Amino acid sequence: MRVTNVKTQDIRFPTSKDNLGSDAVHVDCDYSATYVTIETEDVNLKGIGLTFTIGKGNDLCCKSIEYFKEFILEKEIEEIEKELGIIWEKVTNHSQLRWVGPQKGVTHLAAAAFLNGIWDLISKYHKKPLWRYVIDLETYELLDKLSFSYIDDVITKKEAAEIIDQKKQNLPSNKDELNSTIFPAYTTAAGWLGYSDDKMKDLIKVNLKKGWTHFKMKVGQDIERDIHRCKLVRELIGKENKLMVDSNQVWSVNQTIDSISRLKEFDIMFYEEPTSPDDIIGFRKIKDAHPDVKLATGEMIQNKVIFKQFIENKSLDYCQIDSCRIASINEILPVLLIASKFNTPVIPHAGGIGLCEYVQHLNLINKFIITNNDLFLSEYAESCSEHFDNPAIIKDGGYLTPTNPGYSVKIKDSSLREFDYNEGTYWN
Amino acid sequence: MRVTNVKTQDIRFPTSKDNLGSDAVHVDCDYSATYVTIETEDVNLKGIGLTFTIGKGNDLCCKSIEYFKEFILEKEIEEIEKELGIIWEKVTNHSQLRWVGPQKGVTHLAAAAFLNGIWDLISKYHKKPLWRYVIDLETYELLDKLSFSYIDDVITKKEAAEIIDQKKQNLPSNKDELNSTIFPAYTTAAGWLGYSDDKMKDLIKVNLKKGWTHFKMKVGQDIERDIHRCKLVRELIGKENKLMVDSNQVWSVNQTIDSISRLKEFDIMFYEEPTSPDDIIGFRKIKDAHPDVKLATGEMIQNKVIFKQFIENKSLDYCQIDSCRIASINEILPVLLIASKFNTPVIPHAGGIGLCEYVQHLNLINKFIITNNDLFLSEYAESCSEHFDNPAIIKDGGYLTPTNPGYSVKIKDSSLREFDYNEGTYWN
Repeated sequence: MRVTNVKTQDIRFPTSKDNLGSDAVHVDCDYSATYVTIETEDVNLKGIGLTFTIGKGNDLCCKSIEYFKEFILEKEIEEIEKELGIIWEKVTNHSQLRWVGPQKGVTHLAAAAFLNGIWDLISKYHKKPLWRYVIDLETYELLDKLSFSYIDDVITKKEAAEIIDQKKQNLPSNKDELNSTIFPAYTTAAGWLGYSDDKMKDLIKVNLKKGWTHFKMKVGQDIERDIHRCKLVRELIGKENKLMVDSNQVWSVNQTIDSISRLKEFDIMFYEEPTSPDDIIGFRKIKDAHPDVKLATGEMIQNKVIFKQFIENKSLDYCQIDSCRIASINEILPVLLIASKFNTPVIPHAGGIGLCEYVQHLNLINKFIITNNDLFLSEYAESCSEHFDNPAIIKDGGYLTPTNPGYSVKIKDSSLREFDYNEGTYWN
Repeated sequence: MRVTNVKTQDIRFPTSKDNLGSDAVHVDCDYSATYVTIETEDVNLKGIGLTFTIGKGNDLCCKSIEYFKEFILEKEIEEIEKELGIIWEKVTNHSQLRWVGPQKGVTHLAAAAFLNGIWDLISKYHKKPLWRYVIDLETYELLDKLSFSYIDDVITKKEAAEIIDQKKQNLPSNKDELNSTIFPAYTTAAGWLGYSDDKMKDLIKVNLKKGWTHFKMKVGQDIERDIHRCKLVRELIGKENKLMVDSNQVWSVNQTIDSISRLKEFDIMFYEEPTSPDDIIGFRKIKDAHPDVKLATGEMIQNKVIFKQFIENKSLDYCQIDSCRIASINEILPVLLIASKFNTPVIPHAGGIGLCEYVQHLNLINKFIITNNDLFLSEYAESCSEHFDNPAIIKDGGYLTPTNPGYSVKIKDSSLREFDYNEGTYWN
C-alpha cells in the first residue's frame, strides 16, 4: 500500500472573539491547526496529523511541510513503518532547513504534524488505536523508531529497554481491562485570563458539579488581581480540591520568586511556566529560593535536549510534554523514559486543537509501559471538540480510553470546508 | 522622514556546487539572505537588513517578516528610533506568532533581519556607521533600546550602565584613532569538510602567506579522518600558530568526551559546537571531564536566555555571538554585557552572507564600550563578498574599521537581480 499524496491545510477557528485561550501573553488566540492528510492507494486509508498553533504562523508550519513530503511519497507503508527512525532524522535534520531550527520553532512544529500523521497512518494500517499499536510492538522494534540522539549522557537505549521490559511484565493481559481505563484529568477551562469574575465563578460551579477536583487558572497580569482571583477560586473549590496557577512565561526569575511569595498562601499545587521555557538554570534558582513549591513546564519546551536538562537538573517537578511541539512519538517517548528514570511525574499539556485527542494516547503508553510514578493526571480543556469526528471523551473527571484505530485527530469534513484559512467559507 | 514601504527578498547564491560552507551536518549549503529593504520618503535613504540562511527555509523567514511590517510602516524615523525597545518587544513577542517560536528558529531569524534593517536605517539617518552611532548614544538612551527581559537574575540595567560608563572613560577622544582600528581575525576558509587534502593544503599555504595566524577546520565526519586532517594542518601551520576545530553539533556529550581525548594532542585552542547548541548542562559535563580544554559555541544559540545560562554556568569559554540568529543590537548588546560581567571572551561568528560585514561593527562596540577582556579576535571567512557594495576589508589578518554610514550589508543591485530566488535571472 503506497503513499500517493501529502496534503497540507491551514485551518483556523476564530476563537479570539470569545477570549478562549487568553492568558498573560497570548491575548488574541485563534485556535488553529496545521493539518496534514497522507493519502494512500486505498481511498479509505489516510494518515491524519496536526500541530496546534494560535493563528498567524500556521501558514509557516504548512509551508515547512512541503520540504518533508519527499521522504514518504511513493513509499510502501510497511517500508515507512520500518524506516520511521531514519525518516525522523531526515525530517528533523534536513540539511538546509535545520539552519532555521534546528529542532525548534516553526520547522519542529511542522515536523510534529507530519510525523503525527505518519504514526496515525501506521496504526490505522494495523487497525489499532495508536496507544495500542505502540504497546504491542516488541521493545526493540519500538526503540528502533525512537531518537536517542544527544541524550546518551542521561539515558541509553539499553536503559530504555530495561524500563519498558520491566513494565511490560505487569501489563494487564486482559484487553477489556486496558480498554476500560479511565485516566484522571484536571481542567483549565474555567480560568482564562480574559474571563470576568462572574464568568469564572459560574464555570467553576459548573465544573465542580461535573466532578472535577483539580482546577488551573491563569495569572500574571497584575499581582493584586492574581491574588484576588486565587482567593475567589480557592473559596469556591474549598480546601479539598487542588488549585494550580499558570503565568505563561510572563515573569523574570526574580519576579517569579517575588510572586510566589505572594501567592503561596493559596496552597498552589504547582506554578506553571513562571518564566522563559528556555531557562533551565533559572527554574532551578526559583526552586532553590522556594524549596517547598513545585514548578511545571513543557508546552513550549522545544525538544528532548531541553527536556533532558530540565529533568536531570531537577528544574521542573511536573513534566508537561506537548504532543505537537516536539516531533511526535519518536521524540516524546524518549522524554517519558527520562522522566521515568528520574521518577518525575508527567502531566501532558492539552487544550487547543487536538491536544486532548493526542494526550489520551500518550497517557496510556506512559502508564502501561513506561512510568513508575504513581501520579496519573492529564490536562483537559474543552475547546473545539465539536469539530472532531472522534473527540476525547471525559467521564467522572477522566479520559475514556480511545478504541478507534489511529491517533484520533480527524477533523470533520464540514469544519475543514468552513475554516480552511485559504479556501474556507468562514474566512472568504 | 517617514517609512513608506518594507520590501523582502529571498536571495540565494548557488554555493553548494563548490562545497563552500560544507561541514559535518550541512552538506549542501546554498548561502542565502532574507533581505529586507525599508524604504522612506527620501529615495536615497533606505534601511537594509538581512539574516543568513543556507537555502530552503529562507522563504519561511521572508514570509514571517510580513507580520512585522505594521510596526514601522508610515512612522517617522525619529519615532522609530525613540521606540526601538518597544518595537523589539512587539516583534519578538507578537501575540500569535510567538507560539511558533518564541524567540527562536524561523521567526527570530526573521526578527533579526527586520531589526538589523531598522538599525541600519537609523544610523544612516544620523550619517554614521552603526558602531559609531551606538557608541555616541548616551548610555541611558542606548539601554532604553535594549531588552533586559528574562535576564535580571544575571545582569540588571543598572549594572549594564556601570559597565558602559566605566568603559567610556577610556574611549579614545581622537576620531582618527577610532577609525583606524584594525580588529584581529582568524580564518575558517581553508578547512571545509568537503575539501580534499590537497585543496586544504594549498589554501593553508596561501593563507599563511597572507599573514593569518589562527586556523579553524571542520571535523566530525569520522574520527580517524579528523585525526589525519588535524595532523596535516598542524604540520603545515607549525606550533606557533593556533588551531581550532569545529564539529558542528555532530557528537553527543559522551562522544565529545571521547573525541576530545583523541584530538587533544594537536593542541586545539577551542572545540566549537561539539554537541547540541541547546545543551547548557551537557557542555558543562564535557568541560568537567576535560578541565584543560576550551569550548566555543554561539552561532546557533537562539536567544539571550540561553546565552545567559551558558555564560553564567561556565558552559562555554568563547562566546560566538551571531549577528543574524538573535534579534539584532537590542539583544546582542545584553549578551555582550553579560559576557563582560563574567569576563568571557567574545569571538563573533562570521562567514556566510553578510556576517563579516555585521561583526566588524559588533567587535568595535564590544571593544570600545563593553568588554574588559583582553582577547580581541573575530572570525573571518571570505564568502560571497563580491556581492556587497562595501564588503568587510581584511588587512594583515584583521578587519579594517568601516566608516560608511549604516550597518554595511547592502548587496549589489546586479546581484539582487541575478540571485532573487523568485524572480532572478540565475534561478529562472
